Amino acid sequence: MDIYIALIHHPVRNRAGETVATAVTNLDIHDLARTARTYDVRGYFVVTPIAQQRSLVERIVSHWQEGEGKAFNPVRARAFERVRVAPDVDHALEAISAQTGHRPLTVVTGAAFKDDTISYDALRARLIDEDGAALILFGTGWGITDSLVARCDLRLPGLRAVPGRDSYNHLSVRSAVSIVLDRLLGDR
Amino acid sequence: MDIYIALIHHPVRNRAGETVATAVTNLDIHDLARTARTYDVRGYFVVTPIAQQRSLVERIVSHWQEGEGKAFNPVRARAFERVRVAPDVDHALEAISAQTGHRPLTVVTGAAFKDDTISYDALRARLIDEDGAALILFGTGWGITDSLVARCDLRLPGLRAVPGRDSYNHLSVRSAVSIVLDRLLGDR
Repeated sequence: MDIYIALIHHPVRNRAGETVATAVTNLDIHDLARTARTYDVRGYFVVTPIAQQRSLVERIVSHWQEGEGKAFNPVRARAFERVRVAPDVDHALEAISAQTGHRPLTVVTGAAFKDDTISYDALRARLIDEDGAALILFGTGWGITDSLVARCDLRLPGLRAVPGRDSYNHLSVRSAVSIVLDRLLGDR
Repeated sequence: MDIYIALIHHPVRNRAGETVATAVTNLDIHDLARTARTYDVRGYFVVTPIAQQRSLVERIVSHWQEGEGKAFNPVRARAFERVRVAPDVDHALEAISAQTGHRPLTVVTGAAFKDDTISYDALRARLIDEDGAALILFGTGWGITDSLVARCDLRLPGLRAVPGRDSYNHLSVRSAVSIVLDRLLGDR
């Protein structure tokens, strides 16, 4: 399949459980672009309804793709080729359909997911063997809202250590994206 | 085994291949502490010969463990419990020997390693099944110098996507640590 990822800045919860829009961060863009490029993800969507935040992402990307950034670090420029912005998930899905000709399978991640999930190995087999497109959603803040989770086709279980180790499960989203993509697409 | 990690700020190479000391970053400390805690790593050593940089790490850690940081985010405080500093790898090895009673197995990572490596599954089996201690070394900058690599017992291969995908292999160290620990200790 053609794989896409989305970093969701809205709708997500804050610490109090309220639905909010989180701020885009420069570092998330860099780290996720590099990880996405490493695993040959076809597009990385930064999803936020705030137009100024989308403009910020576009400015950062063009700095590294065209300006001094490209001269300073041409390898980084290649990572940024696949960064996109979208005001919401529907716009991302439409863009993927237009690019691939397939309605994407939607897969959502969450630190607390346990039941009604697909295993990493089962999804890995589908992504590697089947045709089509898939969009994997990652939340910021305290996680994607239940209403958006309910709209997705599949849920992946939260990441944790092997039983017997004192697991903690408060990874940064940068770490979570890296581990999920490696479990699904890594050469291990 | 009791697992430890070390983020090596010296001796590493810069872009020109010279041996340098890189700067400690606040974000590496946060992300690696959270990842290390998630996989029940017993200690995360920030290795730098520069005393001011070690003091900086200690100030950041105590902020999150004792001061306003702990009140703001007690979960983060737990991640910081296991952050340590060391002026060089030998001091880290001595501290591990003192804590565990075992001379640690040393395992080094590098994006370009391919030959003379141990597979992730083979090392995973040893770490999970055997007694003792192990220290896994991660480089900053353009990677750990050859002389330090040569001193380590085992080398892990560089991370990449399954064959057939256009792999790129310029992950951030934050991503690399997350993926390596998940491959070795993750419940997949």
